[in-house]
Amino acid sequence: MSFIVQPQLMQFPGELALTSGAVLRDYHLAYETYGELNADKSNAVLVCHALNASHHVAGYYPGKPKSEGWWDNMIGPGKSLDTNRFFVIGINNPGSCFGSTGPMDINPATGEVYGAQFPVLTVEDWVNAQALLLQRLGITQLAAVMGGSLGGMQALSWTLQYPDRVRHAIVIASAPNLSAENIAFNEVARRAIATDPDFHGGDYYRHGVVPKRGLRIARMIGHITYLSDDVMNAKFGRSLRAPTLPAARGSLPPEGAEPARGGPAPALREYLYSTQDVEFQIESYLRYQGDKFSDYFDANTYLLITRALDYFDPARKTGGNLTQALALTQARFLLVSFSTDWRFAPARSRETVHALLENRRSVSYAEIDAPHGHDAFLLDDARYMGVVRSYFDGIAKELA
Amino acid sequence: MSFIVQPQLMQFPGELALTSGAVLRDYHLAYETYGELNADKSNAVLVCHALNASHHVAGYYPGKPKSEGWWDNMIGPGKSLDTNRFFVIGINNPGSCFGSTGPMDINPATGEVYGAQFPVLTVEDWVNAQALLLQRLGITQLAAVMGGSLGGMQALSWTLQYPDRVRHAIVIASAPNLSAENIAFNEVARRAIATDPDFHGGDYYRHGVVPKRGLRIARMIGHITYLSDDVMNAKFGRSLRAPTLPAARGSLPPEGAEPARGGPAPALREYLYSTQDVEFQIESYLRYQGDKFSDYFDANTYLLITRALDYFDPARKTGGNLTQALALTQARFLLVSFSTDWRFAPARSRETVHALLENRRSVSYAEIDAPHGHDAFLLDDARYMGVVRSYFDGIAKELA
Repeated sequence: MSFIVQPQLMQFPGELALTSGAVLRDYHLAYETYGELNADKSNAVLVCHALNASHHVAGYYPGKPKSEGWWDNMIGPGKSLDTNRFFVIGINNPGSCFGSTGPMDINPATGEVYGAQFPVLTVEDWVNAQALLLQRLGITQLAAVMGGSLGGMQALSWTLQYPDRVRHAIVIASAPNLSAENIAFNEVARRAIATDPDFHGGDYYRHGVVPKRGLRIARMIGHITYLSDDVMNAKFGRSLRAPTLPAARGSLPPEGAEPARGGPAPALREYLYSTQDVEFQIESYLRYQGDKFSDYFDANTYLLITRALDYFDPARKTGGNLTQALALTQARFLLVSFSTDWRFAPARSRETVHALLENRRSVSYAEIDAPHGHDAFLLDDARYMGVVRSYFDGIAKELA
Repeated sequence: MSFIVQPQLMQFPGELALTSGAVLRDYHLAYETYGELNADKSNAVLVCHALNASHHVAGYYPGKPKSEGWWDNMIGPGKSLDTNRFFVIGINNPGSCFGSTGPMDINPATGEVYGAQFPVLTVEDWVNAQALLLQRLGITQLAAVMGGSLGGMQALSWTLQYPDRVRHAIVIASAPNLSAENIAFNEVARRAIATDPDFHGGDYYRHGVVPKRGLRIARMIGHITYLSDDVMNAKFGRSLRAPTLPAARGSLPPEGAEPARGGPAPALREYLYSTQDVEFQIESYLRYQGDKFSDYFDANTYLLITRALDYFDPARKTGGNLTQALALTQARFLLVSFSTDWRFAPARSRETVHALLENRRSVSYAEIDAPHGHDAFLLDDARYMGVVRSYFDGIAKELA
């Protein structure tokens, strides 16, 4: 059983100075909280989101029982991160399209929608924005900051930007920076969006269109990198499925069309010998995911968030020496990686673990043997959930 | 030193019956030959091409010393496949955009360009077309058929379709079928092309346009999968490069633009905090590759060839049992794979090796420890070239 939550908005009338030199003015942040802040405000846990997520981390919205937060399996009363003991904050980063100020909002400097004028943000900027929100909540030190993937980068960055304001960092399925291959996939996704004729240089809002083609391609690429080859073979393999439409050679099937509702489509038994029809199950899955995504995600946000991923590189300031970069940290750490995650492979987590150990920091590290690739960080796995639970049990003991 | 070659065309006035049930009428095939056919016509080696290649396998064209064939490092006088001893045939498959009948040609049934009406072809269809060309050359049995990647699938298919007409098959960096992930990458590339507004359902020729945006994205995706993560990090890492243009926020840089010619561009030292400018070297490399490709490759051909890849699956007829499927083979085999090839991983080659061994076929298998990913099959590597040379030495001895 989950619990009912309500999102909140906090206004920031001032300026947020950004890494790029630009500023973000008169912005707001969306957030949610679960559990109760204790008397000495020492039980707060901040949860940072990744590319396609928001402040809605756990619980569900009134009257919408299927609206569970993206980490609802991890966070709640009695769960691994137990909201009976911790005060958990989910926050939406600026630049997002899920509630905090983003490219779809009005630029106070011009009175027009930001669009392509929205300033480029970094992980460090997000952490600064998060820190300001916590300050307004009266929280001067976090019991823990926690995130997966890009969220893990924010957790790591917290320990560098505000070393004395975070006691524990839980960094899951993450990396100390992107590899060339990671950047390459981001770049292809960005090019698909930016070269969509409906993108209009980022100012598509005023043209009344959305670069859906580009968003679909971006999401399809993303999905491939979230899954392992093994789990794709297990889930889809080379299985065929029914086409979504009678195959009309030379005509385009509707984008991301799924089988007609009202019953399971009959299985396709033979190849259709087409180049554009859906023949394999994996094709149908990807088109569906791409289509769904293009209905709700903002293209400028996609560009901004992938760029923040590209830029994150705490060792850049120390000539590539991660150990030297992490010398600033004071927190204790839990890192978790997943054996089949090839987007942020275990070797990347181990780089961080080694650099922390060389600094004699307290580090727990779990490498979970899971088949699901990068997606594993969002899924149930008894060992994974157990590791996180036991780590938070330890933190809870410090509170007493 | 390489040698001068001339491409040739052979007309086929009849009908080629295709797997799909369609026929290809009045077609021509482009091919090249190197070396001399011996008196008993027993020294012929057919070389099959992969996605982005042609009949121009070795040598160079008159007056164009930089026009070496795609496997010129492997094939020629004194090379691993020695044209002093073997008569080598490079053939371009129907559906290609490099000389054989393809979607850009006139459909004799309508008098108009084929475009989207070009019939969908399979690996088996290509092998049938190759067999007809060999018949016209008077070659009743090949000393060997050889190919890498998709070319390796054709070599394997030869041993099933014409078991008594091929003595040896050399199957390099290939697989007995595509995995779900392989199909997924193909599907994203196809969607990028087919959803490009300039694609016009495949009939872009008559609109006087080319779906360049889609081709660029397709090629960028392809390139990522040809390289290993390691070699990408070694070649590009997180290095920055100079932007191609003064960064104008909100304006699109020219597609695939490279640094201005006339001298090396100065290195970029800091992030630009942009979402569309070229900042990382890997971005510049991918854009350049995508742009070059979109200048010469036909979009319909790309769809056709990736679909032939998807469809290839000799074990489909035997309920997924590869051993049973390969019971038809009579040839002897050399298989080669490369340790960092994640597109067609060594495990995929081993599937074929095991299935052949279970049929008590003669199989040599080399797993080459090379850093270059799938691309390794096209590159020089002393052990790789040595393995192929020594295998052909053995074949040459049979000829004497």
